[in-house]
Amino acid sequence: MQVIACRVRIQVGLEESGYCGLVLEKLTTSGASIGDTIEIRQGDAVYSGILMPRSQIGSDPAHVVIKIGSGYNLGVRLNATCTIRRIGKSKRTQPSSESADSADESLPSVAILSTGGTIASKVDYQTGAVNPALSARDLYDAVPELRHHANIRAKVLLSKLSENISSDDWTRIARRIAAEIKTGVEGVVVAHGTDTLGLTAAALSFALQNLPVPVVLVGSQRSSDRPSSDAAMNLIGATDLAARADAAEVMVVMHGETGDSYLYAHRATRVRKLHTSRRDAFKSVNTKPLFMVQGVSITELSPPLHRRLKERKLVLRPRFEEKVALLKTYPGMDGRLIDHLVDDGYKGLVLEGTGLGHTPEGIISSLKRASEAGMLLAMTSQCIFGRVDMNVYRTGVELLDIGVIPCEDMLSETALVKMMWVLGNTRSLEAARDNLQSPLVGEFEMRSEYSDYPSIGGE
Amino acid sequence: MQVIACRVRIQVGLEESGYCGLVLEKLTTSGASIGDTIEIRQGDAVYSGILMPRSQIGSDPAHVVIKIGSGYNLGVRLNATCTIRRIGKSKRTQPSSESADSADESLPSVAILSTGGTIASKVDYQTGAVNPALSARDLYDAVPELRHHANIRAKVLLSKLSENISSDDWTRIARRIAAEIKTGVEGVVVAHGTDTLGLTAAALSFALQNLPVPVVLVGSQRSSDRPSSDAAMNLIGATDLAARADAAEVMVVMHGETGDSYLYAHRATRVRKLHTSRRDAFKSVNTKPLFMVQGVSITELSPPLHRRLKERKLVLRPRFEEKVALLKTYPGMDGRLIDHLVDDGYKGLVLEGTGLGHTPEGIISSLKRASEAGMLLAMTSQCIFGRVDMNVYRTGVELLDIGVIPCEDMLSETALVKMMWVLGNTRSLEAARDNLQSPLVGEFEMRSEYSDYPSIGGE
Repeated sequence: MQVIACRVRIQVGLEESGYCGLVLEKLTTSGASIGDTIEIRQGDAVYSGILMPRSQIGSDPAHVVIKIGSGYNLGVRLNATCTIRRIGKSKRTQPSSESADSADESLPSVAILSTGGTIASKVDYQTGAVNPALSARDLYDAVPELRHHANIRAKVLLSKLSENISSDDWTRIARRIAAEIKTGVEGVVVAHGTDTLGLTAAALSFALQNLPVPVVLVGSQRSSDRPSSDAAMNLIGATDLAARADAAEVMVVMHGETGDSYLYAHRATRVRKLHTSRRDAFKSVNTKPLFMVQGVSITELSPPLHRRLKERKLVLRPRFEEKVALLKTYPGMDGRLIDHLVDDGYKGLVLEGTGLGHTPEGIISSLKRASEAGMLLAMTSQCIFGRVDMNVYRTGVELLDIGVIPCEDMLSETALVKMMWVLGNTRSLEAARDNLQSPLVGEFEMRSEYSDYPSIGGE
Repeated sequence: MQVIACRVRIQVGLEESGYCGLVLEKLTTSGASIGDTIEIRQGDAVYSGILMPRSQIGSDPAHVVIKIGSGYNLGVRLNATCTIRRIGKSKRTQPSSESADSADESLPSVAILSTGGTIASKVDYQTGAVNPALSARDLYDAVPELRHHANIRAKVLLSKLSENISSDDWTRIARRIAAEIKTGVEGVVVAHGTDTLGLTAAALSFALQNLPVPVVLVGSQRSSDRPSSDAAMNLIGATDLAARADAAEVMVVMHGETGDSYLYAHRATRVRKLHTSRRDAFKSVNTKPLFMVQGVSITELSPPLHRRLKERKLVLRPRFEEKVALLKTYPGMDGRLIDHLVDDGYKGLVLEGTGLGHTPEGIISSLKRASEAGMLLAMTSQCIFGRVDMNVYRTGVELLDIGVIPCEDMLSETALVKMMWVLGNTRSLEAARDNLQSPLVGEFEMRSEYSDYPSIGGE
């Protein structure tokens, strides 16, 4: 990942690499270019690695960034007495075809589909912001270690920031994955932006049923051309899982904690981005992760939906109904918001209610009208953890009477995706209601472990 | 809490107490009535406590429920060989006036205002659901230990399920608290349903500025007439904090973990209900709790906004603008939802975007139109933990250009309440924008501790 940034930047020269002042001076003296391997000596400390460009946002001019042996970037703060020496020339990769330059027949085959996002992004030097840009082939070139893990077939499917991924994109990704699986790969990796990665993963869980091999979605929280990007480690882990995990379901792989010690693979329908910036932003909610990945070791933490079985026949059902909304309730919420959805022809609404599944009384008559108009209504909780239980309080009982379906311990995002899928794949409202209330791909359980609840750091 | 349930039920007799079968038989033989102190001997075990009625929902007919010395309810599963003996008669309390029967002049004075919710609820035997019912005086009678902690002046202000609390109620509660503080109490406790407890607490933080004494909101996750209710412990802890904590801000007090070992007091603007049913559902987000309460010991965990100072002059600003909405973004979200708000005269909109503060591109033109129409727009993250940063990606930069205000590490619920308050208390949009971006009562920080992030149990 970082290497590819070098490959791009090496053509623009050191002075355009983002370095300035003392650092630029020291680098120029050493004769090193971006992409070269350098050695930095400072007091007793010696650091060596591939010289990386600096991102132009938030650069501290006193740091030099190198990619070290582990595949991660390190920022070294230079002082005036340090010395920098070039100890190796940049190796340019030679992009040729989609597949690996020299396939190793003993390795499993994995398809990597790129859809965009930080894992495949670089800084846009015009707006100063990060844009999706790198191709799947670039990813592969950027993480040469991948060659030792699998024979990769890389494809660029989309180049979108994940907040812009729509249900049409889910359909397109699902079809492409089905096509890849038909060719006999051992697994499929999908690189995706993290903002809506959980939702796309959930959508693929419903669209790709009866999977014979794993489908692994992966993202990164730090742009690939920045220090301490998690892109390389996440991508290698995702590829390993796709190639070797004895599971056949859609998973999400990301850092398990904020360091680089291990990754978690989560069930796609039960994972949520719970932090805006930490590498371990993704957490399984109301359940445990499926696998822990530490280096080359894959440890199963809870049983997958299906075991890997290449003979199993994939059932592709990639349609989604677009006219489904998600509304989080709040004090004083106005029923006209719901009336508007009914009038606009919406077919379904997922409510993110309070507590055990309640709404303000002010919207109840509008919900009744929506239900009578044939709109499918479902309830999740904005608490995120725990399950709805609409039999405890008067409000819940009233909502059940109207026909609001309790979504048990399902995430509201998964409930939205499932409702879109259910309405896209059933003709009658009755069948849609039935499907919504039946666990199809492990998206909810009738009993969740009480212990799967966060404790907050520093308590 | 539990005792009061007895007081109500004792009038209906044992056979209507919810007990049946073996348990009813054993109780009848013993001659005990609801509210009496009984002793149960079963094998080597001896349990004693006040006989409680069973709730009619989810009753296991083989259990008897007693209130033990700690103030908590215990369910004992009876077998045929057990013996039950009545060892004390029920003490009926004699409700008379609002204030304590015999005030102890050496104790601090605390006002307890009841607004409804589980902490003041009982089972509705008609619908089978839990309704708000008990008065503040009932609360006091129910937890006789309170007499030793403070001189209580108890008032019923509202009797509402918290999902139905509106901004008019916030105004009313704020005014009542201000009036109580004027009488010279050491602190005020507000009993409130948990669903929207955090929002009411945040609203009071903005409405009651420059507080001289603490205002403590408290709820309970288990109905007061059920085994293992957290109502008594939470109420005692809240009263202690109101009476003695060296802090003058609005706080939320609830269980700190799922057992009965300690409580946390959270800053009102930074706490969220994160679990539908656990007693430790409330967590401080992006910050640490303010106090830990263990028995009679109060430990400060992070500095309060102000220290207690009875001479400080409270500034009451209890107005809230109702025409403010909260929308959580999702894939394929339709801009017409926002157009509808503009056309309906909404003055403000808090977006709960993805990741660092992004929305799908499909709603951006509607947001632009809303901004041009003079609607105040603000961005929070549906990740919940972490802070928005709209300078990193193209979408964020675009939204900033439109005029969307980044809410840093503020909870979306707090941002909604703050926007309602800001628009209710400023005349110009410019002043509203300024107020929204300035931390007024600790509702956000420009830098949050990286460590205040959940680790999930079982990892």
